[in-house]
Amino acid sequence: MRATTLHAPFDIRFTEVPDPTITEPTDAIVKVTAACICGSDLWNYRGENDITAGKTIGHECLGEVVAVGDAVRDVKVGDHVIVPFVHCDNTCPDCLAGVQSACRHGGFTVSGQGEFALVNQADGSLVKLDGAPDASMIPSLLTLTDVMATGWHAAVTAGVKPGSTAVVVGDGAVGLCGVLAASVMGAERVIALSRHESRQKIATHFGATHLIAERGREATDAVKELTDGVGADAVLECVGTRQAMETAFHTARAGSTVGFVGAPHGVELPVRHMFVKNIGLAGGMAPVRRYLPDLLELVQDGRIDPGLVFDLTLPMDKVAEGYAAMDERRAIKVALTPIS
Amino acid sequence: MRATTLHAPFDIRFTEVPDPTITEPTDAIVKVTAACICGSDLWNYRGENDITAGKTIGHECLGEVVAVGDAVRDVKVGDHVIVPFVHCDNTCPDCLAGVQSACRHGGFTVSGQGEFALVNQADGSLVKLDGAPDASMIPSLLTLTDVMATGWHAAVTAGVKPGSTAVVVGDGAVGLCGVLAASVMGAERVIALSRHESRQKIATHFGATHLIAERGREATDAVKELTDGVGADAVLECVGTRQAMETAFHTARAGSTVGFVGAPHGVELPVRHMFVKNIGLAGGMAPVRRYLPDLLELVQDGRIDPGLVFDLTLPMDKVAEGYAAMDERRAIKVALTPIS
Repeated sequence: MRATTLHAPFDIRFTEVPDPTITEPTDAIVKVTAACICGSDLWNYRGENDITAGKTIGHECLGEVVAVGDAVRDVKVGDHVIVPFVHCDNTCPDCLAGVQSACRHGGFTVSGQGEFALVNQADGSLVKLDGAPDASMIPSLLTLTDVMATGWHAAVTAGVKPGSTAVVVGDGAVGLCGVLAASVMGAERVIALSRHESRQKIATHFGATHLIAERGREATDAVKELTDGVGADAVLECVGTRQAMETAFHTARAGSTVGFVGAPHGVELPVRHMFVKNIGLAGGMAPVRRYLPDLLELVQDGRIDPGLVFDLTLPMDKVAEGYAAMDERRAIKVALTPIS
Repeated sequence: MRATTLHAPFDIRFTEVPDPTITEPTDAIVKVTAACICGSDLWNYRGENDITAGKTIGHECLGEVVAVGDAVRDVKVGDHVIVPFVHCDNTCPDCLAGVQSACRHGGFTVSGQGEFALVNQADGSLVKLDGAPDASMIPSLLTLTDVMATGWHAAVTAGVKPGSTAVVVGDGAVGLCGVLAASVMGAERVIALSRHESRQKIATHFGATHLIAERGREATDAVKELTDGVGADAVLECVGTRQAMETAFHTARAGSTVGFVGAPHGVELPVRHMFVKNIGLAGGMAPVRRYLPDLLELVQDGRIDPGLVFDLTLPMDKVAEGYAAMDERRAIKVALTPIS
């Protein structure tokens, strides 16, 4: 098959690779019908994570099941499915506790920007759709594989409550979905830290009541001013950098929780500040499967439209253009369509 | 007056210092009727915190009010009171959110091991007793100024639930009170990490169902074995060292929370592990005043007897002996009686 592969920093290609094969009876293979590029792919693209030259990349896709292992019961060939980026059996103690992203039998989608993707634990991971989705639904459904579920997780773990004030650090697709999540959860004030007009527009559409274009100390001061010096009741950290985490902790009120979902890179947690102010940290890699049924219902009912985060669509063999556009922040999020 | 002062590492004295005076209308002065030494005093005693030579030390005491500022309404001269180590107005937004330890008008007891202590925000901080307490009640009441409330905070912030499995890291007075708290909150299994027989006895009396004498990786393995490889539902970190924090995070199950109350020294939080396992961190300096009314009732009803953590009582002018005994772990916790 052909799939997206990373060869060196900024060297991304759409190339021939071996087809995935079923090796475990719980596996399934999915023909990718829609895919996209994740902000977290950029950590690899930029060489900020270690790169294995030629390895496939891409963990967000929808697809049609084309093969299943002997133990797969709930999913069959021909089913159209949402593929969570992190797989799970949905039956182990960690899954039952709602942490499907820590499933002891899990795995990850690794060729989601290719023609076919292997899914470990097909029964536990995949969520079936009622036939091939309508083209208009595809963008929002795609976000459920990761970014919308991840933004939701940030809001859940930050403890967003009705009537509260939430701050969202990060205006990438996850941050924007975090704004949407906080708004749906009833936050009275949703303060989005965003300096890009196109992103501000989406944030506002998603329910942001306040936009702060400043960064660092100035952003902190602006949040403090908006909250009578108290700070936010809940803070969603949707980036993963040191500065974003610092901003998160310094906008959080005493006794609140920072919900973090940005894969941490170079982050040192301010343990002394956390101790003195009783500010907690919760979150982590999103247990997508946990939220999928509810989020799917919200999308199907038209109550949320997270697909708006896509502002560029390319055929899959132009994937390199998509990475460049996201890396240069010319695009918020890039959708990829199958080439055949 | 005479009070305990620290002059250099391991150089602790009972010396003449200026009497505290009322400088704010919200202040009160308390004649100390019972005091004690805190495990956290040892950070200063050992020179692991910066020392200002000659400065008074001691933040846990009971007393009788001998002077109040003009704005003090609820407390009057002659009242017998519990003095929380951290003061608060109990009316600011942080206090109202239950984080009295982050009160913006707060302060700390700084001469609690002396004849008199100054209390900022007397009305917000002090909890009145019904006359001079019976001698038999003094040890347990003393623990409410800090260690029992701190152990309670660890259990609250770790999210101990009825029927759950809790691990307590640390067998100092706070850790032992954490065992008691987890037990009162209904944890089915309370696993105390303790290697000292005298402390194990108290832990068991306080409700520990399992004792683990190992440390580090061996302790982690023992907890994993007890929990079928899953880890604990809630972990109370009651030390503040790097090793204790590591043990806490590696005994916590995916999706759980480490409640930390040990003032952090040299701690680096394992942010990647937290992310991958969705293990949160909550807690911090205990909002003693928040818990005091409930804990006082539990003590007065005889439902908890945290005073058992005291295993040495000395007159206040022998305070240096008390510090040495705690430093060398010959005593768990030392009570001090007034010298006049």
